[in-house]
Amino acid sequence: MLRIGATGVLLAAAALWAQQPASTNVRGAMYPQVHADRRVTFQVKAPAARTMEVMPGGGANGLGKGPFAMTRNAEGVWSTTIGPVQPGFHYYWLLIDGVPANDPNSETFFGWGKQSSGIDVPDPALDYYDAKDVPHGDVRIHWYRSRVTGQVRRAFVYTPAEYDTNPRKRYPVLYLQHGAGESERGWTAQGRANFILDNLLAAGKAKPMIVVMENGYATRPGQTGGRGNEAFADVVTGDLLPEIDRAYRTRPDRAGRAIAGLSMGGGQALQIGLANLDKFAYIGSFSGAGARDFDPAKSYGGVFADAAAFSKRVKLLWIGCGEQDFLYPASIKMHEALDKAGIRHTWMAGPGLHDWQVWRGHLHAFAPLLFQD
Amino acid sequence: MLRIGATGVLLAAAALWAQQPASTNVRGAMYPQVHADRRVTFQVKAPAARTMEVMPGGGANGLGKGPFAMTRNAEGVWSTTIGPVQPGFHYYWLLIDGVPANDPNSETFFGWGKQSSGIDVPDPALDYYDAKDVPHGDVRIHWYRSRVTGQVRRAFVYTPAEYDTNPRKRYPVLYLQHGAGESERGWTAQGRANFILDNLLAAGKAKPMIVVMENGYATRPGQTGGRGNEAFADVVTGDLLPEIDRAYRTRPDRAGRAIAGLSMGGGQALQIGLANLDKFAYIGSFSGAGARDFDPAKSYGGVFADAAAFSKRVKLLWIGCGEQDFLYPASIKMHEALDKAGIRHTWMAGPGLHDWQVWRGHLHAFAPLLFQD
Repeated sequence: MLRIGATGVLLAAAALWAQQPASTNVRGAMYPQVHADRRVTFQVKAPAARTMEVMPGGGANGLGKGPFAMTRNAEGVWSTTIGPVQPGFHYYWLLIDGVPANDPNSETFFGWGKQSSGIDVPDPALDYYDAKDVPHGDVRIHWYRSRVTGQVRRAFVYTPAEYDTNPRKRYPVLYLQHGAGESERGWTAQGRANFILDNLLAAGKAKPMIVVMENGYATRPGQTGGRGNEAFADVVTGDLLPEIDRAYRTRPDRAGRAIAGLSMGGGQALQIGLANLDKFAYIGSFSGAGARDFDPAKSYGGVFADAAAFSKRVKLLWIGCGEQDFLYPASIKMHEALDKAGIRHTWMAGPGLHDWQVWRGHLHAFAPLLFQD
Repeated sequence: MLRIGATGVLLAAAALWAQQPASTNVRGAMYPQVHADRRVTFQVKAPAARTMEVMPGGGANGLGKGPFAMTRNAEGVWSTTIGPVQPGFHYYWLLIDGVPANDPNSETFFGWGKQSSGIDVPDPALDYYDAKDVPHGDVRIHWYRSRVTGQVRRAFVYTPAEYDTNPRKRYPVLYLQHGAGESERGWTAQGRANFILDNLLAAGKAKPMIVVMENGYATRPGQTGGRGNEAFADVVTGDLLPEIDRAYRTRPDRAGRAIAGLSMGGGQALQIGLANLDKFAYIGSFSGAGARDFDPAKSYGGVFADAAAFSKRVKLLWIGCGEQDFLYPASIKMHEALDKAGIRHTWMAGPGLHDWQVWRGHLHAFAPLLFQD
């Protein structure tokens, strides 16, 4: 039997082999490292700093509640190990003497209204969002001029791997929106939407579709104040839909269009989708902001008032929320109100915070239900 | 005639109107601001910082030689105005108590081996790289598996606006590489290659072409040490070319392929292009690292030794460098050696540092010379 001292050495060696640089690190960066037990070690060289801390995005997220103090060695290298943390993607910052900044070791991800550091912590039980050895669709950065805003905007457009080899085939389109403080880059960079679709399509679990991810912020020329997303609905119906139908081989009818989004984007999907049922037959709200103060008799212009007519017209109304999400009470209340009113919809709950790991799961559950006829 | 005091007020008002948030800022960020006279004002709120400075990427670039001290007001807002600076794109960092970090107001751009802040300072005399009201090509993020590295890699692939409406037409391909410490994102995010091509194509000044931008770093499984780009040539010839010819409607012959790059990428373009003249007929080196110690009799496997044969076989050898670039002496020496050896090539000099404004100009001059027969 090994002595405690020896065991300690062996355990240390095992830990060394069981941790590796995060997939979200920049090329060559050895830290942050994710341990097999989902602890995370952050390390950064900054001899001039007086204090250094790790701060989860927003103060608390799947990494836990911060800030987490780092300790300095003689060479000015600061480090800390936290966790075990939740699997999935988590925003974070370094606090350099209390000032939020990015970790130079990390890629940046647009969240919290700025470019933020992020770390992806694998879940050994889940691989549906990995870049597997299957055909990969392109994600196209597509620029176009918006008449509503008067500016050049861009959409990220996923085309399935088969798109370029079927030059006569037309595809349905899912419009998929990010959350507050994020951008059109979020669903691919943080959410891995393209790999989720690649894997579903390779397994024959979803219909080949185009996915359009735009920026949920849009204002009219001269607008000041507000949240900055006031013109987005008009951009979608007035600019984006016609542009996508022009530039890509789409099915330009309501049965060939879905709209979904997360958080703020979930609210926008409900708002835009329900006000434009001539354009969208599928609607999804992932941890959606639109669930608050829901009343089937009055909300969304009364579109739910005739339950039978609604259920006939809308092919899918999908609502999901993690049970540890601050929006869960409002979301389950919306689900229950819809149930009570006899409105056909799909509800998905389960463990989860207000974070990308939940939304990856939502997309993975939602996409297979689209465009089945 | 206005009094001095009144003039002062008027001038201040004029200055207020003549400065605006940089195009490289994140949504809604009012600073950095670029003045009409190309001074730049940086401003950031950080009450906890003891000192705050602006540091140009690498210590000195088109912004000047840093660091530039910022001054703190009573609310903890730090600011400084520098310049006039050079027009074009410049990397920079904030030094928070001496620790390099990103400016939360700025988008990030992969350079210096990490995500760095950047500012684009317009040149009123130049608009060839602006997003104008012309048809825009897509920039496709294309994932593929590399047999050389054993990993999934991605290329950024520009397809001209007409690509999707001509499903039978095949296009020549320019392979275009970034510099040391940068990535496959650089030529579009920093270099605006897509808008440069859009504008050239709309004006009929270049042949419609695909532009492929990959990451110049690649290593074989298990490799440690080195610069990290040792396997890149094999990736290009063994993985990337076949993949691009498979996935896109290319002209898969040497007369339909060009390779070019900047700095490290210019060295790679010379190295890969000259060693594979069966695959590439056009080669361009922008401020290229490959110019150093050039000897036409011996360099690049002696490919230049028979000047007449080389000049007949290679449709274009293009070399350019800014006159204030540290690689200018080596570049002009290479040009002169080629001239002396009677090797047909195109040489472009002119004012400029080792920076993206020069490389935008190089692409703008180089692309119209490609694929003319």
